[in-house]
Amino acid sequence: MDLHQLTRELHVKNDTKIVFYVADGLGGLPQRPGAMTELETANTPHLDALARAGVLGSSIPVLPGISPGSGPGHLGLFGYDPLQYKIGRGALEATGIGFELQEGDVAIRANFCTLDTEGNITDRRAGRIPTEKSAPLARKLREVEIPGVQIFVEPVKEHRFVIVFRGERLHGNVQDTDPQATGVPPFAPTANDAASQKTADVALEFVRQAREMLADQPKANGLTLRGFAEKPKLPSYEEVYGLRAAAIAVYPMYKGLARLVGMDIVGTPQTLDEQMSLLEENWAKYDFVFIHFKYTDSSGEDGNFAAKVKRTEEFDAAVPRITALNPDVIVVTGDHSTPSMLASHSWHPVPTLLVSKFCRTDACQKFGESECLRGGLGQFEAKHLMTLALANARRLNKYGA
Amino acid sequence: MDLHQLTRELHVKNDTKIVFYVADGLGGLPQRPGAMTELETANTPHLDALARAGVLGSSIPVLPGISPGSGPGHLGLFGYDPLQYKIGRGALEATGIGFELQEGDVAIRANFCTLDTEGNITDRRAGRIPTEKSAPLARKLREVEIPGVQIFVEPVKEHRFVIVFRGERLHGNVQDTDPQATGVPPFAPTANDAASQKTADVALEFVRQAREMLADQPKANGLTLRGFAEKPKLPSYEEVYGLRAAAIAVYPMYKGLARLVGMDIVGTPQTLDEQMSLLEENWAKYDFVFIHFKYTDSSGEDGNFAAKVKRTEEFDAAVPRITALNPDVIVVTGDHSTPSMLASHSWHPVPTLLVSKFCRTDACQKFGESECLRGGLGQFEAKHLMTLALANARRLNKYGA
Repeated sequence: MDLHQLTRELHVKNDTKIVFYVADGLGGLPQRPGAMTELETANTPHLDALARAGVLGSSIPVLPGISPGSGPGHLGLFGYDPLQYKIGRGALEATGIGFELQEGDVAIRANFCTLDTEGNITDRRAGRIPTEKSAPLARKLREVEIPGVQIFVEPVKEHRFVIVFRGERLHGNVQDTDPQATGVPPFAPTANDAASQKTADVALEFVRQAREMLADQPKANGLTLRGFAEKPKLPSYEEVYGLRAAAIAVYPMYKGLARLVGMDIVGTPQTLDEQMSLLEENWAKYDFVFIHFKYTDSSGEDGNFAAKVKRTEEFDAAVPRITALNPDVIVVTGDHSTPSMLASHSWHPVPTLLVSKFCRTDACQKFGESECLRGGLGQFEAKHLMTLALANARRLNKYGA
Repeated sequence: MDLHQLTRELHVKNDTKIVFYVADGLGGLPQRPGAMTELETANTPHLDALARAGVLGSSIPVLPGISPGSGPGHLGLFGYDPLQYKIGRGALEATGIGFELQEGDVAIRANFCTLDTEGNITDRRAGRIPTEKSAPLARKLREVEIPGVQIFVEPVKEHRFVIVFRGERLHGNVQDTDPQATGVPPFAPTANDAASQKTADVALEFVRQAREMLADQPKANGLTLRGFAEKPKLPSYEEVYGLRAAAIAVYPMYKGLARLVGMDIVGTPQTLDEQMSLLEENWAKYDFVFIHFKYTDSSGEDGNFAAKVKRTEEFDAAVPRITALNPDVIVVTGDHSTPSMLASHSWHPVPTLLVSKFCRTDACQKFGESECLRGGLGQFEAKHLMTLALANARRLNKYGA
């Protein structure tokens, strides 16, 4: 069942405003069984006040036991089934560095590698070449010329860079050229279908010219290509929900994901404070605002329990600037859990709260993983959160007569 | 969405060990509203200790309100969607008596019946002929000879027996020959598709020869055939989860079900004590061990509340032999509920617990139906339990970048 068939049919427009306040990797784990998680340890008076006014629950990002990456994590929050909509690796990588993909582009994640005189790979990551050396090399590859195809090359980090081909009749169904081994040459780009043959031909010519340009490099004298991907086809917030939506994020990845579902990207904030100012300034213009806070995830990824607690308190401290605007619906959640104990994304359900005049408040008194187990939203797949928000904003007609 | 597409793609191998300790028919009902169930009445100190360390929930075997048989109940536990994978009646019957079906076999559940001189059925169960009389008759039918087809006939109980045809081009899409009425003759075996025509022809010839052999029998002089079924095609634990899996069970049915998903069948234990010894002896060899305990179900089926309580305490008493081995993940659950009040399988959610270092312990203090309602796993379809176990064993990569 495509949820958007329902929302397309049922949504109505009104003057309500919805805020999604998202702490990346919000969910956590206690340091020992029975102890408190990062969120439970943090002093979060404003989130606790929202919890008393609202309804709580535990959001399952994809399915029980599945740990999502940032792409599927956010697609779920945005109401797009993360098992139905997939963002290819190249497209996600381009999105992550802020490259604005167009319809028909093919994006590729590329790695510099080291080749011996026979053309066999001796180092798949070009000796983990530092970014200050690899970035100029990636930019040099912008000189590759292939008739009828516009070529973009963007440095990422260390041995990694992104290539985008733009032109007629380009498709992304091409196999990786990385053999995942040393002592063998990279594969030639091979199309999996006739429609992608032109892309494979273009990629082959790109590699040929690139190797000439890199021939005198001691380490980065070759390249492999992975995750050929077209811009994912995602229906827009305007079309499926009737919402004028904005994203206020610091990091390119989350701006990019929001752009893929048709949100406007507002400003270039560097701090949560600047994000909140942008929220205030743009309040009149939008029906829906997604505010992304990165540091609960990055501190979790660092395995730093205390830092995650502190970041959670920062996230809490900004809540009054949201509530002062009197949104009709506030949702606070994360795209997945990132327990500092695991130092990685995890499968654990994500504490979630929703506040509106019509939310049917439950008995929960604080915002935290344990308290959410008693909440009125129960456990639910993240993809249902947008429908719940629209309902609470009175933006959905009833289904059937 | 096929869960195995995900687990196939995401699973990794490591040194962790997972134990599924399954009490058949574990869930129950209180004898009057508000009283305790069998599990809640039982003194289960070891399960309660696991409950305090772990996370609890209620497993829905198939869908709310659906009471499963042993086949779908176990398929769900093993992570195979019981609505997608079906085990035909003949195949389940053969599995239940320990017959090892091969690819391309067709298994049939057969009944002795009584025919009059016109060939009409006068008793569909041959006067519920006792097993000691029917078993030799079933074995006599092994003398049936049909060129190009190997024939197996195995007694079951009373009027029931199993026939397996083994040969080229045999398929199971053949209609039952039991008219479900007396005063009429059995139907001729009729194929529903061209591919199954040979099976129907073989079955017709089998019945012809069998009736000659049984002609002098006073009661069991005829037979009907039901549930023609091929060996179900189930992907293996090794393929979908990357697990070397073992089953330690007393009864043939559960060994058979485990064998269908590629588990090794370990030993021929007769008691739970012997099962635990086999667990210890085989600990090093496997990543996953399924231990099946039958008597919670059989006492429930007998409608004997007190006996089910006692059997549950037996099940509990063996827990220390599992925990002594220090598995990374322990799951305790049942394949369905068998409340003694109903004396049958039921649809009620099954108390479930999962213990691991990363399970996000909840506030539950005891193992029981009511306590599970407060648990961190919530209510979930049984098919997700394997994914959760794999996640807790850190055997799944993240989904999407």
